[in-house]
Amino acid sequence: MFRSHNCGALRASDVNKMVTLSGWVQGIRDKGFMVYVDLRDRYGITQLYFDEEQSSTELLEKAKKLGREFVIKVEGTVTERASKNPNIPTGEIELLVSDLDILNKSAVPPFTIEDNTDGGDDLRMKYRYLDIRRNPVKNSLIFRHKVAQEVRNYLSKQDFIEVETPYLIKSTPEGARDFVVPSRMNEGQFYALPQSPQTFKQLLMVGGMDKYFQIVKCFRDEDLRADRQPEFTQIDCEMAFVEQEDILNTFEGLTRHLLKSIHNVDIASFPRMTFDYAMKTYGNDKPDIRFGMEFGELNAVAQHKDFNVFNSAELVVGIVVPGGNTYTRKEIDKLIDWVKRPQIGALGMVYCRYNEDGTFKSSVDKFYDQDDLAKWAEVTGAKPGDLICVLSGETNKVRAQLSALRMELAERLGLRKPNEFAPLWVVDFPLLEWDEDTERYHAMHHPFTSPKPGQIELLDTDPGAVKANAYDLVLNGNEIGGGSIRIHDKPTQAIMLKHLGFSDEEAKAQFGFLMDAFEYGAPPHGGIAFGLDRLVAILGGQETIRDFIAFPKNNSGRDVMIDAPAPIDEEQLNELHLSLNLKS
Amino acid sequence: MFRSHNCGALRASDVNKMVTLSGWVQGIRDKGFMVYVDLRDRYGITQLYFDEEQSSTELLEKAKKLGREFVIKVEGTVTERASKNPNIPTGEIELLVSDLDILNKSAVPPFTIEDNTDGGDDLRMKYRYLDIRRNPVKNSLIFRHKVAQEVRNYLSKQDFIEVETPYLIKSTPEGARDFVVPSRMNEGQFYALPQSPQTFKQLLMVGGMDKYFQIVKCFRDEDLRADRQPEFTQIDCEMAFVEQEDILNTFEGLTRHLLKSIHNVDIASFPRMTFDYAMKTYGNDKPDIRFGMEFGELNAVAQHKDFNVFNSAELVVGIVVPGGNTYTRKEIDKLIDWVKRPQIGALGMVYCRYNEDGTFKSSVDKFYDQDDLAKWAEVTGAKPGDLICVLSGETNKVRAQLSALRMELAERLGLRKPNEFAPLWVVDFPLLEWDEDTERYHAMHHPFTSPKPGQIELLDTDPGAVKANAYDLVLNGNEIGGGSIRIHDKPTQAIMLKHLGFSDEEAKAQFGFLMDAFEYGAPPHGGIAFGLDRLVAILGGQETIRDFIAFPKNNSGRDVMIDAPAPIDEEQLNELHLSLNLKS
Repeated sequence: MFRSHNCGALRASDVNKMVTLSGWVQGIRDKGFMVYVDLRDRYGITQLYFDEEQSSTELLEKAKKLGREFVIKVEGTVTERASKNPNIPTGEIELLVSDLDILNKSAVPPFTIEDNTDGGDDLRMKYRYLDIRRNPVKNSLIFRHKVAQEVRNYLSKQDFIEVETPYLIKSTPEGARDFVVPSRMNEGQFYALPQSPQTFKQLLMVGGMDKYFQIVKCFRDEDLRADRQPEFTQIDCEMAFVEQEDILNTFEGLTRHLLKSIHNVDIASFPRMTFDYAMKTYGNDKPDIRFGMEFGELNAVAQHKDFNVFNSAELVVGIVVPGGNTYTRKEIDKLIDWVKRPQIGALGMVYCRYNEDGTFKSSVDKFYDQDDLAKWAEVTGAKPGDLICVLSGETNKVRAQLSALRMELAERLGLRKPNEFAPLWVVDFPLLEWDEDTERYHAMHHPFTSPKPGQIELLDTDPGAVKANAYDLVLNGNEIGGGSIRIHDKPTQAIMLKHLGFSDEEAKAQFGFLMDAFEYGAPPHGGIAFGLDRLVAILGGQETIRDFIAFPKNNSGRDVMIDAPAPIDEEQLNELHLSLNLKS
Repeated sequence: MFRSHNCGALRASDVNKMVTLSGWVQGIRDKGFMVYVDLRDRYGITQLYFDEEQSSTELLEKAKKLGREFVIKVEGTVTERASKNPNIPTGEIELLVSDLDILNKSAVPPFTIEDNTDGGDDLRMKYRYLDIRRNPVKNSLIFRHKVAQEVRNYLSKQDFIEVETPYLIKSTPEGARDFVVPSRMNEGQFYALPQSPQTFKQLLMVGGMDKYFQIVKCFRDEDLRADRQPEFTQIDCEMAFVEQEDILNTFEGLTRHLLKSIHNVDIASFPRMTFDYAMKTYGNDKPDIRFGMEFGELNAVAQHKDFNVFNSAELVVGIVVPGGNTYTRKEIDKLIDWVKRPQIGALGMVYCRYNEDGTFKSSVDKFYDQDDLAKWAEVTGAKPGDLICVLSGETNKVRAQLSALRMELAERLGLRKPNEFAPLWVVDFPLLEWDEDTERYHAMHHPFTSPKPGQIELLDTDPGAVKANAYDLVLNGNEIGGGSIRIHDKPTQAIMLKHLGFSDEEAKAQFGFLMDAFEYGAPPHGGIAFGLDRLVAILGGQETIRDFIAFPKNNSGRDVMIDAPAPIDEEQLNELHLSLNLKS
């Protein structure tokens, strides 16, 4: 037996018990006549001690030779500590060791196993198994488990059935790039790994499964941006015989449950906001509504003077920095530099100070008088002591720029509080979006999303204006889920695929099985998918997902710990009927 | 709103309520002046009716035109049935329909959506979404969900953490063939899909995660036998600071919990049996112990006469068919034919009738007298009225043959009762097994399995005799789980890999990360993995797994519903730096 208790279990009530513990040596303090060892496992830390009065010389010497991260088993007596440590649950006791067994030695770890480590990202990834011993990573993984369990238990209680859909499916050129898997038994043919179980969950609805969910890995072979992973986890859900309202209510329930069970937070208001409103008010379809700083559109009160920058702009729009009038000129110049960075791309920024005495001082005083600026303040909601920041230009671009500025300012002002949660639904998304590269419309959500009733005719005349029965769940400025009511009849699906540029043959080859299924009594259905990695990170009060994934890949899609991907044998290639076609 | 209730909900207490239901038309009975419709959804069936006295002509006509599997929504009043149907929970009521909405029509389905369908396997697989509407498949999937939930909740309560390990990993030639995934971003390199998360779960132990589980898809590119799938699901578990006994107790607990929570069955005895004992007694390392029919080895009582078949055999072994003396000569001849089938491969079978009057009549009376045969009866445990079946030959082969006969006879005798459950542990497996094809030893479990203490030296002198800290969980004649205590130090792992034929370079290239990890304080650890597909099938009282998998593949690894795998675009191949190398 390796242990009678774990390293987080012992309390003052256990004093005088003989116990056995196992774990890692977190640290050693050698006082000569006494040796203290902090013994660590997943559950906590227990202080061990050896002293020359009560321990044999042999035992004391053995203890002195322990190194960091050695794995040991000890037997001993729980004693009350003279100086208690109120910072750890076991701080009232320590263990007088009577027997010490070294289960495994450890080389000196490449970085310290402490909350604040000296290890850089690359080193931590290479030795991820050591990184996982650190509390921040270990606790993130345990937190992820807890969230997943809460999701499963909540949905199960709501009659959802978790059904496993296949991983070896068929490649579809729509959407992102697929990872493919050559088939040995079917010469020259390939499986694809799913980007999502979309068509399968729809088939489960056709199959009468009624309420489906699955926590499932999905795969996208994209050029990786920071904080994207080639494999990621979704909470994938679908319901039959539902309208949009049913789905929003169900998953509002799930979100409330998670926030309550995990953070004991009750969400008072769970707003629903149209896509158009969100874009107009926050410049963004995933607004962070933990704070205000809503957009004020200034065209009506800023395009009547000789300031050509504004007059030639499609949109002039401002936000208020609360208390921002304290910013020095230098600080404001830095803000202007910030919006002019290529990542943001604004050409400049107009600002207007709202002085405590009620007067205004703007960077465009040459063009606008106090009455004009008072109207800006009115539209943007500025108060004395605030600063108004104004951008102008093409609507979509300037909204994105001002949205970025809004988030940056909120971050600096401490308005994005990690322990405050403000979920909302964004609804009425456009069905299609124009793609500059391919010069055609793409499905904004996916090709199975249903247009709003009565709008299908608009597809021919004004495709960009067609709204979809699609919705996103947004939490603290992040899209954590998105879904739609689906098309459930063959003619509508055919029209949709045609408008997305599929020929009849392509549509049949790729989605024929789904269109066929629609002919055998497909019920109305819809669903949603949550990105679990991000959901967990945000619930954990963080914005980066990497420490919530046990073994993440780097930006080249590599696992640097196991050194994958890697070349394979010639024999393996031959069996797969493949040859390499390398440039070099 | 599509429904106020589901089709399994309404009871006599709901009479006179106005309700809305949606579902599929299971059947229609048109009596001219009245039309009855069975409306079905996942939850049950509700009888609807339309009649010429209470319904409009238009509504009645509409109902008459409904077809099987049409999707409809109805509003109506719950009424008490004149003739109640005690076979369904809603059998006390029916619904007088006041409004009928056809949500979707259906073509005539290719097979009937009933418990006993007229659809063959191929048709059912092609239209799996219709097959899933049938109770046997639907209920199997719901049952699977329930089992998985029970597993997760039980293990979570025992402090296990579910950690997701990566799917895109590295190919290792040990074991079965990997499915590989070409990397676009890492030219000429491939990921592999995991055959199991073995190394990752061990690294999680090195990482201090202490207790890990995961319900996870695994992949093997094998030539498929019946009832094998290229992708399958495991309940994968690992624990640190444990000995074999800790693991057996933990997962005996899980097994008891599943049988109790799912079948309300308490398991009185949970035997542990060595591999050697199981082979000797049942000819098999996964014995079905719901019934006896244990092997009696007859060498001592059958090799003293002139019967050369027995005298030249390594093993002479018999089993008793309870009550088998009633078999006619013709029936026994059929049994002999059965064991001589190439799948079984016996050269013949000797039998001995134990008559009710205490005399014996055998097929080898020429060689053995009544006293000899009485000893056979004693060794095999035969009683008057029984039949003794005896096979002989090379030990391993004859054990396998007699084990097959034992299972076949038990099946015929109705001794393999689907609702009876008899789990056991088989322990002390050999570490290595001799592979005839490659003429070398392979790891019986995998290369990370720890030999029994003190046996590592035997590897050099008598490799086949080394026993491992390995165990299988067997239920009703099926291996449902298997695991081992792992090696957790680099020197032992190196010795093991060397004995499995890895050069130092190969060992380093493939398992270097694991061996490195062992140098930084790896704790003693071990684990187990259950095959979820089979576990669920057996708990569900069945032996074939296919209906417990939503979208299974056929024996060529094809999904005939979506028609995968399939060729991919030339462009996709180019991006992956691959070209096809086809024979034809």
